Amino acid sequence: MPASLLSKIKHPSDLRKLSDDQLPLLAKELRDFVINIVATKEGHLGASLGVIELTIALHYIFDTPNDLLVWDVGHQAYPHKILTGRRETFHTNRQLNGLSGFPKRSESEYDTFGVGHSSTSISAILGMAIASKLKGDTSKQHIAVIGDASIASGMAFEGLNHAGVTDTNMLVILNDNAIGIDPSVGALKEYLTKAKVGVKPRTNNIIEALNFNYFGPIDGHDLSSLLNTLERLKTIEGPKLLHIITTKGKGLKQAEENQVKYHAPGKFNASTGDLIPKDSTDLPPKFQDVFGHTLVELAQKNDKIVGITPAMPTGSSLKYMMQEMPDRAFDVGIAEQHAVTLAAGMATQGLVPFCTIYSTFLQRAYDQVIHDVALQNLPVIFCVDRAGLVGADGATHHGVFDIAYLSCIPNMIVAAPANEIELRHMLYTASLGLEHPIAIRYPRGRGHIIDWKVSPQKLEIGKANCLNKGTKIAIISTGTIAHNVTQAIETIEENIAHYHFGFIKPLDTTLLQKILQQYQTIITVEDGVIKGGFGSSIIEFANQYKFKNNITSLGVPDQFIHHGTTDELYEICGISIKGIQKVVLENL
Amino acid sequence: MPASLLSKIKHPSDLRKLSDDQLPLLAKELRDFVINIVATKEGHLGASLGVIELTIALHYIFDTPNDLLVWDVGHQAYPHKILTGRRETFHTNRQLNGLSGFPKRSESEYDTFGVGHSSTSISAILGMAIASKLKGDTSKQHIAVIGDASIASGMAFEGLNHAGVTDTNMLVILNDNAIGIDPSVGALKEYLTKAKVGVKPRTNNIIEALNFNYFGPIDGHDLSSLLNTLERLKTIEGPKLLHIITTKGKGLKQAEENQVKYHAPGKFNASTGDLIPKDSTDLPPKFQDVFGHTLVELAQKNDKIVGITPAMPTGSSLKYMMQEMPDRAFDVGIAEQHAVTLAAGMATQGLVPFCTIYSTFLQRAYDQVIHDVALQNLPVIFCVDRAGLVGADGATHHGVFDIAYLSCIPNMIVAAPANEIELRHMLYTASLGLEHPIAIRYPRGRGHIIDWKVSPQKLEIGKANCLNKGTKIAIISTGTIAHNVTQAIETIEENIAHYHFGFIKPLDTTLLQKILQQYQTIITVEDGVIKGGFGSSIIEFANQYKFKNNITSLGVPDQFIHHGTTDELYEICGISIKGIQKVVLENL
Repeated sequence: MPASLLSKIKHPSDLRKLSDDQLPLLAKELRDFVINIVATKEGHLGASLGVIELTIALHYIFDTPNDLLVWDVGHQAYPHKILTGRRETFHTNRQLNGLSGFPKRSESEYDTFGVGHSSTSISAILGMAIASKLKGDTSKQHIAVIGDASIASGMAFEGLNHAGVTDTNMLVILNDNAIGIDPSVGALKEYLTKAKVGVKPRTNNIIEALNFNYFGPIDGHDLSSLLNTLERLKTIEGPKLLHIITTKGKGLKQAEENQVKYHAPGKFNASTGDLIPKDSTDLPPKFQDVFGHTLVELAQKNDKIVGITPAMPTGSSLKYMMQEMPDRAFDVGIAEQHAVTLAAGMATQGLVPFCTIYSTFLQRAYDQVIHDVALQNLPVIFCVDRAGLVGADGATHHGVFDIAYLSCIPNMIVAAPANEIELRHMLYTASLGLEHPIAIRYPRGRGHIIDWKVSPQKLEIGKANCLNKGTKIAIISTGTIAHNVTQAIETIEENIAHYHFGFIKPLDTTLLQKILQQYQTIITVEDGVIKGGFGSSIIEFANQYKFKNNITSLGVPDQFIHHGTTDELYEICGISIKGIQKVVLENL
Repeated sequence: MPASLLSKIKHPSDLRKLSDDQLPLLAKELRDFVINIVATKEGHLGASLGVIELTIALHYIFDTPNDLLVWDVGHQAYPHKILTGRRETFHTNRQLNGLSGFPKRSESEYDTFGVGHSSTSISAILGMAIASKLKGDTSKQHIAVIGDASIASGMAFEGLNHAGVTDTNMLVILNDNAIGIDPSVGALKEYLTKAKVGVKPRTNNIIEALNFNYFGPIDGHDLSSLLNTLERLKTIEGPKLLHIITTKGKGLKQAEENQVKYHAPGKFNASTGDLIPKDSTDLPPKFQDVFGHTLVELAQKNDKIVGITPAMPTGSSLKYMMQEMPDRAFDVGIAEQHAVTLAAGMATQGLVPFCTIYSTFLQRAYDQVIHDVALQNLPVIFCVDRAGLVGADGATHHGVFDIAYLSCIPNMIVAAPANEIELRHMLYTASLGLEHPIAIRYPRGRGHIIDWKVSPQKLEIGKANCLNKGTKIAIISTGTIAHNVTQAIETIEENIAHYHFGFIKPLDTTLLQKILQQYQTIITVEDGVIKGGFGSSIIEFANQYKFKNNITSLGVPDQFIHHGTTDELYEICGISIKGIQKVVLENL
């Protein structure tokens, strides 16, 4: 058996030494390589399998890294990483100090733009193309690869709308596989679907309406078609879009057939594709499922309840409501801004909208939260999913800013349950109708309580609890990091008081005054940024009422935290069980 | 002379008693009414004059407020206000405790959705239309009126993309006058321009590609055409868009001819349209002009400098650079998200992008600031215009959250000059190349220094200054509110120390330690929200280093502040000259 082609490729310059007819074999090797590593190391599978041929063709035809290539979102960039100097380190993908799961400028000169959130690539590549033009560099090519779900987001439209009136040399490759993480939705998707089967005329289409030269659709798994087309496009000036049709999960039967599950399937058998089942018997539920199932229960009893997700029905578990009551649960696509203002519009008419958005993506709708919801004091319920450190997805996905950016907004209630049961109570309480908007933040993944399906209770807004009584030191925590606190103080001989503030705003000022009076030493713990966060609110309050306690704030420091397991990242931030213990002992 | 038609109309129900042929006279009266009041009271003129006929037609044909009508942005809602119960109070427009310059839910049941920022109307009306559908109310009509500049923003596209796959009963009226505040830009605008003159086919257009039923274009000043078309559209189900062509400033010759100036012209002669010139001789410059002219100077010496504005070339004064070096200054339209990531893309290629965005609109690009700029530590220079309280534009436009929402982002430098000269120095310093992104915030309008064109100096990042020495109390201010502090302490007999922190992040911790050691009583002053703001940073620092000073934070309290003059609003927030004096005297 000859040495594999893939093993000879350190960089795209090596790739370009191959002949055209060797590329199909390389594609096979590259596909197998991705499958074999992701099967054991986990990660994003389907998107990468869908662009094996495209990735080879791009690096073969274009002169990367001199030519500039931006991958939108970056779920699909594994083959790109493997062909650009990172084959031998690819097994460290998404691990602490290993490769990032997304393109990252600090990792490689081939990663021209860091991604993770969707729909940024057109703006970024246009900025680069304008820069080349201003520098008089006419040789450079500028390519953005964007999926059909991502191009439907408003930001991508803004980029196209601007690019279309420039004469920059840029190529947008629309990688149309009819799915993001969940199936694509929206009018543009329906339009593209028609384009594929030739119902719409190839000319005078929506892309050409925006002054782009439109090419395609072509089969994105046909290497010779890709090579010929890309070679031709190199010589065509101005903004242009190539529409390619691909299959997410291409080459692994089960991944092709179950594209949502194989987006990031966990461990699986590399030969058969069979998932390796995790024993989830007796495991506590995911917070997402507590949200999803509780919402269905509440909605069954209150027909004013509606659910909204921007493109995360599976990840957020809104899918349960979408299955049960499809008229009242809405996947609006990658459109966070729209999702929030849609909820505001619904709330004006007396509906009770639960708008579930990942913390990091709610940043996309910050203005809408302020201007359309909070300013009008509309009782929209934000279910802020994946709050705190998310682990392997890393810096682009951590939900660590939400407490800071939401707490400064007037009228907002900001809540963070300690566990699944408190989340359930909060959802129920919010469903009864509040006088203000509320954001309920909870983390990615599983909690610690198996019997969570208790009868939901109405909570008093702004009421905190004592979880443990103590003598010298009081810890004040918010959110599920309370669990680390509980474990941290269990093994300490002295009784450490532990108060949990399920409401970050409004604060339980009555209890807080008592705590500040009773304990000279206070430690606050949160899984968000310290700067402007929960601890900061405690300090502001103490300052305002002239308390002179010693207050230590634990949380995420003022730096971007990269990827690793959540426990590793808690350790780095000093909010692991050990980290909290250490600070308590120092203060005893 | 008969009693005017307008004076008989308290509510749209009165309007509907008129016959069709009385409406042109009503239009004349309504137009004159708007002109006469705005001529003396000031406000947004051009947009309202452009929709006189449309407003009459909408309230005549539709059963408002049962039918739901949302005005996008709301600059154009004066005739709507006048016809919906607010004719007699209209002279209080934009004054403290008077009418808001924008539709506002708390003001009238006819104002179904509060606006001020652009491009929210489609999402809001879709939310309302879905609510009607779920409630089984098939009689209600749902109408959004949106301009051609606003519909090109990403958020509007997101709304259209979702609406197109619903079967809701909604009508989008595209009010196409080819101008927002400045002339519209972008590929969509060029497309619409062609549609008007019939170059593009009326069917299979970009709107129909999104599953909307497209009608028009029709003349938006032709009442009978409007009435007939709207009447017909009431009976057509599903999402539909009516394209109308109007002239901004219609009916006042000078406003039609100089649409940018007459967007909000200040006082003018109601008969002739002539502007009433303000004597600006010997007035200090607007901060915007300090920015605009300084940027041109800097860009003339450094060809890497580029300028970007999302649709505010006149308001921000980027227009000077656009005139001098059109290849290097970009109006990208109402596209804040794109503007920021475009800047990030440019920065990766070594350009020095100055991205000027109003503070309140930077909220629209919050995620892009975090994810595309700060996380990649790209040295984009954000010129955060209209920071602080903006006055008559009110709650939707105050730039009071920026310190809080920017300070929690790692890598960001956050700066607030005390005056025009410090702004100039900061722009110069940033242009030399920083290792981090920087946000320089400055207010709307004029400062206090006439001779501002000094030779620009390089500032040390993070260095604060002593403006006044004192004995007992130290005031620490940031930004141009420093001027109020200076005036406040001038008349107090005791010497009050005054330190100005031009850098909110990083803080001048060396000086801050000294201040905290020297003065037991500290007062912080800022024109942003107290919660998570500058004062909060000072308190966090003091807490961290176990200082036990008495610190009082002055700034914008945790509530939305409405409209009035900036001095009135400073008074309300306790940061007027008198307000600051009062707190100082209480602490002496």
